[in-house]
Amino acid sequence: MNSKFIVIEGLEGAGKTTARNIVVETLRSHGVKEVLFTREPGGTPLAEKLRELIKQGMADEKVTDKAEVLMLYAARVQLVDNVIKPALADGKWVIGDRHDLSSQAYQGGGRGIDQQLLRSLRDTVLGNFRPDLTLYLDLPPAIGLQRARQRGELDRIEQESLAFFDRTRTRYQALAAEDDSILTIDASQSIDAVSADIQAALQQWLQQQGLQPVVQVQY
Amino acid sequence: MNSKFIVIEGLEGAGKTTARNIVVETLRSHGVKEVLFTREPGGTPLAEKLRELIKQGMADEKVTDKAEVLMLYAARVQLVDNVIKPALADGKWVIGDRHDLSSQAYQGGGRGIDQQLLRSLRDTVLGNFRPDLTLYLDLPPAIGLQRARQRGELDRIEQESLAFFDRTRTRYQALAAEDDSILTIDASQSIDAVSADIQAALQQWLQQQGLQPVVQVQY
Repeated sequence: MNSKFIVIEGLEGAGKTTARNIVVETLRSHGVKEVLFTREPGGTPLAEKLRELIKQGMADEKVTDKAEVLMLYAARVQLVDNVIKPALADGKWVIGDRHDLSSQAYQGGGRGIDQQLLRSLRDTVLGNFRPDLTLYLDLPPAIGLQRARQRGELDRIEQESLAFFDRTRTRYQALAAEDDSILTIDASQSIDAVSADIQAALQQWLQQQGLQPVVQVQY
Repeated sequence: MNSKFIVIEGLEGAGKTTARNIVVETLRSHGVKEVLFTREPGGTPLAEKLRELIKQGMADEKVTDKAEVLMLYAARVQLVDNVIKPALADGKWVIGDRHDLSSQAYQGGGRGIDQQLLRSLRDTVLGNFRPDLTLYLDLPPAIGLQRARQRGELDRIEQESLAFFDRTRTRYQALAAEDDSILTIDASQSIDAVSADIQAALQQWLQQQGLQPVVQVQY
């Protein structure tokens, strides 16, 4: 079967790294050998420069909401055209830590940028390129932020208000509800329960795609 | 009268700096006291960072046409929102070395990005904000590039082919023909003739706006 682009989405502290490990394990147990990790914004030399500008902002200048979203899409098109599409064409599976859904949720829901504008920007920049599957890790912002804080200093976006993250979550949930390629995982559970849910959801999806677990014969 | 935003446009080597000096002199002779210069891309801390990325590119990565145009608009919205609009509101006149018309001509004409897409991006990002007057310095690319080369090392965009600049000029000319706020100056003439044309065109425009030369009375 063709290689796929699987994206992991969710608020800060939702457990995206743990989820990625489960996804890789599950893919390997289904015979997938070559897997590439990407993160957004970032993942190419130029996109990483833009990530730095977006995450850190400028000491003496407000980054406008529009400049932020334009830089995010500049980074995204570099990653998609220079990394993700070539990897998929080369038979590699790609696991993305965030992709376009983050812009729809954070910039659309959180910042209040018009949804139609964001969709038009997405279609203009990415054409019809979409992830094959998105695992959205849903949890209340207060829990996620607490986890993120324990990890260290917060960047410009992580310093937003709880209301910002509430709006972001609400938009994530609404977008997941209307798109069959987005599976919602309850990330407020224990790590073991979240991991089991991710594994089960992914296994079912892989089987729908015609990919069976590799049978290990023991003598 | 309200302060105005006047933009100087044209290919590399068209004489934009000389034109700017004539514009300032002419404004001063009409009693304009506070003038702010801007250049694009650039003019704010973030926009200058983006300018560097756009001009130099990345040693090991192709900058896609779409990323380029998104970074240009990110820089532009920072400059418009954080610098140009506040200056105009504060009674200052603003003289811009390049503005949106450059993207329409270079990215639209030169790179071949769809014109409708660029207009939609402009309207989305800038709303109905437009220069009050644009002076477009028109000249054959070969002449301009020769002048630009004499000034020193060429950046990533200045290294484009003559065909690229031919397409850019053709688009400039077409856009100038359909927009009354763009005045075309024949920049292939001698410096003195170009300067005189700019002065005459600007004086006429200022008078149309109701601004007369300041009369100096000598006893």
